[in-house]
Amino acid sequence: MFFASDNTGPMHPAVAQAMVAADAGYHPSYGADPIMDGVRAQIREIFEVPEAAVYLVATGTAANALALATMTKPWDAVFCTPLAHINVDECHAPEFYTGGAKLSLVGDGDKMTPDQLRARIEGWTKGDVHTSQRGPLQLTQVTEMGRLYQLEELRALTGVAREYGLPTFMDGARFTNALVALDCTPAEMTWKAGIDALSFGGTKNGCAGVEAVIFFDPAHAWEFELRRKRGAHLFSKHRYLSAQMQGYLTDGAWLEAARAANANAARLAAGLRDMPGLEFVEEPEANMIFATLPRREHQRLQAGGAVYGLWGDLEGDPDERIMMRLVTDWSMTHELIDDFLALALG
Amino acid sequence: MFFASDNTGPMHPAVAQAMVAADAGYHPSYGADPIMDGVRAQIREIFEVPEAAVYLVATGTAANALALATMTKPWDAVFCTPLAHINVDECHAPEFYTGGAKLSLVGDGDKMTPDQLRARIEGWTKGDVHTSQRGPLQLTQVTEMGRLYQLEELRALTGVAREYGLPTFMDGARFTNALVALDCTPAEMTWKAGIDALSFGGTKNGCAGVEAVIFFDPAHAWEFELRRKRGAHLFSKHRYLSAQMQGYLTDGAWLEAARAANANAARLAAGLRDMPGLEFVEEPEANMIFATLPRREHQRLQAGGAVYGLWGDLEGDPDERIMMRLVTDWSMTHELIDDFLALALG
Amino acid sequence: MFFASDNTGPMHPAVAQAMVAADAGYHPSYGADPIMDGVRAQIREIFEVPEAAVYLVATGTAANALALATMTKPWDAVFCTPLAHINVDECHAPEFYTGGAKLSLVGDGDKMTPDQLRARIEGWTKGDVHTSQRGPLQLTQVTEMGRLYQLEELRALTGVAREYGLPTFMDGARFTNALVALDCTPAEMTWKAGIDALSFGGTKNGCAGVEAVIFFDPAHAWEFELRRKRGAHLFSKHRYLSAQMQGYLTDGAWLEAARAANANAARLAAGLRDMPGLEFVEEPEANMIFATLPRREHQRLQAGGAVYGLWGDLEGDPDERIMMRLVTDWSMTHELIDDFLALALG
Amino acid sequence: MFFASDNTGPMHPAVAQAMVAADAGYHPSYGADPIMDGVRAQIREIFEVPEAAVYLVATGTAANALALATMTKPWDAVFCTPLAHINVDECHAPEFYTGGAKLSLVGDGDKMTPDQLRARIEGWTKGDVHTSQRGPLQLTQVTEMGRLYQLEELRALTGVAREYGLPTFMDGARFTNALVALDCTPAEMTWKAGIDALSFGGTKNGCAGVEAVIFFDPAHAWEFELRRKRGAHLFSKHRYLSAQMQGYLTDGAWLEAARAANANAARLAAGLRDMPGLEFVEEPEANMIFATLPRREHQRLQAGGAVYGLWGDLEGDPDERIMMRLVTDWSMTHELIDDFLALALG
Repeated sequence: MFFASDNTGPMHPAVAQAMVAADAGYHPSYGADPIMDGVRAQIREIFEVPEAAVYLVATGTAANALALATMTKPWDAVFCTPLAHINVDECHAPEFYTGGAKLSLVGDGDKMTPDQLRARIEGWTKGDVHTSQRGPLQLTQVTEMGRLYQLEELRALTGVAREYGLPTFMDGARFTNALVALDCTPAEMTWKAGIDALSFGGTKNGCAGVEAVIFFDPAHAWEFELRRKRGAHLFSKHRYLSAQMQGYLTDGAWLEAARAANANAARLAAGLRDMPGLEFVEEPEANMIFATLPRREHQRLQAGGAVYGLWGDLEGDPDERIMMRLVTDWSMTHELIDDFLALALG
Repeated sequence: MFFASDNTGPMHPAVAQAMVAADAGYHPSYGADPIMDGVRAQIREIFEVPEAAVYLVATGTAANALALATMTKPWDAVFCTPLAHINVDECHAPEFYTGGAKLSLVGDGDKMTPDQLRARIEGWTKGDVHTSQRGPLQLTQVTEMGRLYQLEELRALTGVAREYGLPTFMDGARFTNALVALDCTPAEMTWKAGIDALSFGGTKNGCAGVEAVIFFDPAHAWEFELRRKRGAHLFSKHRYLSAQMQGYLTDGAWLEAARAANANAARLAAGLRDMPGLEFVEEPEANMIFATLPRREHQRLQAGGAVYGLWGDLEGDPDERIMMRLVTDWSMTHELIDDFLALALG
Repeated sequence: MFFASDNTGPMHPAVAQAMVAADAGYHPSYGADPIMDGVRAQIREIFEVPEAAVYLVATGTAANALALATMTKPWDAVFCTPLAHINVDECHAPEFYTGGAKLSLVGDGDKMTPDQLRARIEGWTKGDVHTSQRGPLQLTQVTEMGRLYQLEELRALTGVAREYGLPTFMDGARFTNALVALDCTPAEMTWKAGIDALSFGGTKNGCAGVEAVIFFDPAHAWEFELRRKRGAHLFSKHRYLSAQMQGYLTDGAWLEAARAANANAARLAAGLRDMPGLEFVEEPEANMIFATLPRREHQRLQAGGAVYGLWGDLEGDPDERIMMRLVTDWSMTHELIDDFLALALG
Repeated sequence: MFFASDNTGPMHPAVAQAMVAADAGYHPSYGADPIMDGVRAQIREIFEVPEAAVYLVATGTAANALALATMTKPWDAVFCTPLAHINVDECHAPEFYTGGAKLSLVGDGDKMTPDQLRARIEGWTKGDVHTSQRGPLQLTQVTEMGRLYQLEELRALTGVAREYGLPTFMDGARFTNALVALDCTPAEMTWKAGIDALSFGGTKNGCAGVEAVIFFDPAHAWEFELRRKRGAHLFSKHRYLSAQMQGYLTDGAWLEAARAANANAARLAAGLRDMPGLEFVEEPEANMIFATLPRREHQRLQAGGAVYGLWGDLEGDPDERIMMRLVTDWSMTHELIDDFLALALG
């Protein structure tokens, strides 16, 4: 019963099949493969931006760090929340790729408000050579606590950035989970909401390892290409990245996978509401559930074979409440979820 | 008729099958997958070093840059040839990952001699705070011009490094092509010849995108892990890297693929010896052929459908000799080679 | 009436005289001047550490950034307060020199408590490759708000760092102002209180531009020398740095200057207590005063010729309280202070 | 008898006097001192560029590295000679400040020719993401071997750079020595000869530690200011940099000092022509002399109290010729030179 992450499951069949199909004959290397031409066209169509610059890399951290570095000077502050993946889970990849930019933390959780953002921006005086300069706004959608920015929230935050002339970047590692939850179009959740660049995740939603970086304004394209190569993220046998994304986008596999993942989380959450002692930290909105339980319950669940993320030690005061994270993906069966619920509700 | 590179062909069947086999069920992420445990054990056995530190990344540039960065201080000189891949084909990834080390060029081609190396090392005065400090020796095997360092050459060069207390690194993007050409053991071509760390290539010899970084002394292991994550090269669904390497190493697929690639190059070279006007730049020793031809011959070959690397423009003085690079891999058929030869010998 | 900073006044006569005295004849360059030998010996004696490594640079930011970089890996978190000079006034010099370390902010002001420090350290899980690694503790003495860490506060904070095996660094841009205020020895305020390395400021206390970097354990000496040269902070005509520090340390000029500066601040603060509407933000403890006044009072003071730091615009709601910073140095006369007080109380 | 460098002598009296004069009263910090306003105006007038951006730093390496970083992307090649100070004497400051640019070496000595430059530029294929991109041309005037680029040589080299759209930078650590030797105007030796930015040296010609960075096109001004602060090279008590440059430029002190230095070298060289066994490596053109002598002669000179740079060990085969460097500055007396000549010819 594995709920540790959405990076522990297999490829979606559509992705796996595209990989196999691509694995024959000659393909030009380094992104010149014809599959990539198709992927680029698909993404431009899906996002309704014919001139968008589209690139593939293999990890979410690479997508975030390379995209941000293209938008950020070494002396800039990047505005993000304290729980942002770029702040806590990337071992300083953003600082490395930007050449020493600072993450300037807004709010105290996984989401920020326009007022918090404005206050933080104002905290760095424009034109003062001693301080951080004002750089891009970064937002994660789905957030690191499994929540969503509603479209009006996105627009309000990017509106503040726009007032100050700052670019905006969305970490969309779970982009599609958010998209199907909000039931909007990719354009509505990005450039129509003021987003300039996007990490469009594939890995957590059925791919083996592929993320697209999308700049809605292609001005940065060549610099991005240089940064990708210099960062050692340009694949020689690029077809194997292209093929994943091709399979992912074909016939709605990406949407289907995200809907399945979200539905699995909803089923799990619905069941857990009846578990005595369990409290949701945030109301689940996509494919992640954060909840607290007394330690004794975690001991019981893990002894029963459940695997999930735990904030704190398994040993200690049995009454202390500690936080768990349960993540679902498309590949989980109802049976698996129901087995877990049976264990939980004991 | 594609001879542009050994990164344009498909996966070796053993690799592709391992990928498919790995694509089922739950696997812990970030390198904790059990397939990686097997890969680590296999590599340790193949290299006869039970404690070696073994890691996987997806690109050769990542393997080189991360391994070198672990061995190099920002103020160090890395000793390599002017034609080294790290010098001419990695868009400053080594400088980026080392934080500004300098590539100090030895000799004037793809190979260096002990005397050239010694002279260059002596060129940086030990203990002088103003100059580059003496850092690692880097050697590429197979070289960038398709040649080999014989074991005694390797030992002589690493011996010079050892005299000065300098570590040694081998870029083995085509490691196995060299190995089967020299008909020696992996240990003989590496640590027994004085090599401290190795990029052990898979991508160019039948994998989709995987290279192992091997430190024969595991002292650097944790630093390498931090550098890999910070460089955004740690795969979440790491099983798909592990599986490639597993398939590659199982039942001698790696050796078989390299032998086939080298044999294809030999067949090609043998035929080309009869081509009027063709001159080998270096005697081919592995799976790459460098040769010059009058431009008119290149025009004829490319018009006939041949694709390969060309140093210079296709248009110009028809009598001027320009250099071509032909690369073979395991997937090329005798028929393909013979078709090319038929065209060449016309 | 200039109270904007302690970097706007002239050299202390003892420093100026030493500069003039050094300005004759031949001196070896790059720190090999005999004056530096004397300075090194003086500092070792003052700090009671015969083997301390001692270096000079020209700016406080250089001292901080180079010292920290020597103690910090690029993937480390440096623990400091949000108001730390290294966080808000150095334009990412720490991030630049460390190669991308993160400043992990402790507390919400200019001082931190042991509990706050411990919580922040615990926030970065040891051995987790994804997050920041735990790096050095940084403390500023005098703090950026003009306050002091008492010796027992220093010992408590460094004790927490020691528990986790973390090194400690003190930004002592106003070291001597703190020293004379606490009336302790340099050893008591540094290594006896658990400090491993120190920026020992000269510039703000009567020098033209010189700071010593002191490592009580000389293990880092050579790396520091390389970092200083690579950062372009090694002076060729080093005698002019040495001479400043020599003059500063001779016959107690440094202590005398700091006592005068602190006494000037005390005189100023004593007078201001009678100013209607003025509120100290923190009780002044050294040579800086932070206070709030209604904007109309600032308008009146600045119209009257007073120059000082102001947090906020001079134009706006006349009743709004905004913060001022007044800084004194040794060179200010009682007359100047009394003139300002006459204006203020006027 | 000290001829080791032009960084071992005292300040020129005009500089020392300006320092003393500046050392009184209040001055705004960080470059806002009124002395700097005068210096900026003086330099703009001297170079005949009213809009030039002018900044001061304390070391030549800082001037070079910061100026180059402003003109260079991390993936660019900087074209310079193998003997360039930036290549051999700055401990990777250029690589550090540029974020990993590569110094691409042109020619095999201290000067390059247009053909050598063109060949090296052509060696990096435009638009190839794998290789270095083409960056600025760097020239040192006076060269590191004491030679001059004639104006037509400068124009020819910058003309090649211009053809490729590349910016040009002059390391003028000994700018004035070259200027008076060529008897031309500062404008003629810089922007009229195609130079875009300049390190205008003061330290080696009578200052304590100051270099101006001049951009003839001020487009880069703000970025330079950020880089200077981030590099920790912005002085708080900036007046002491300004004053040096003010004294240096007033009443022709800079020209007088350089003429004296060059005349001293000429006197020394004239005498040495009669020394048996001495051979000039290059004909001296400014204030440096490079010559070879049998080792036994070096042993005799150094035993006699002469101090100078030596390429090689003082111990060894007495007949082996090794190279010496003799450098003169304005402060050396005829008597000192004649004493040395008496010893040499003795």
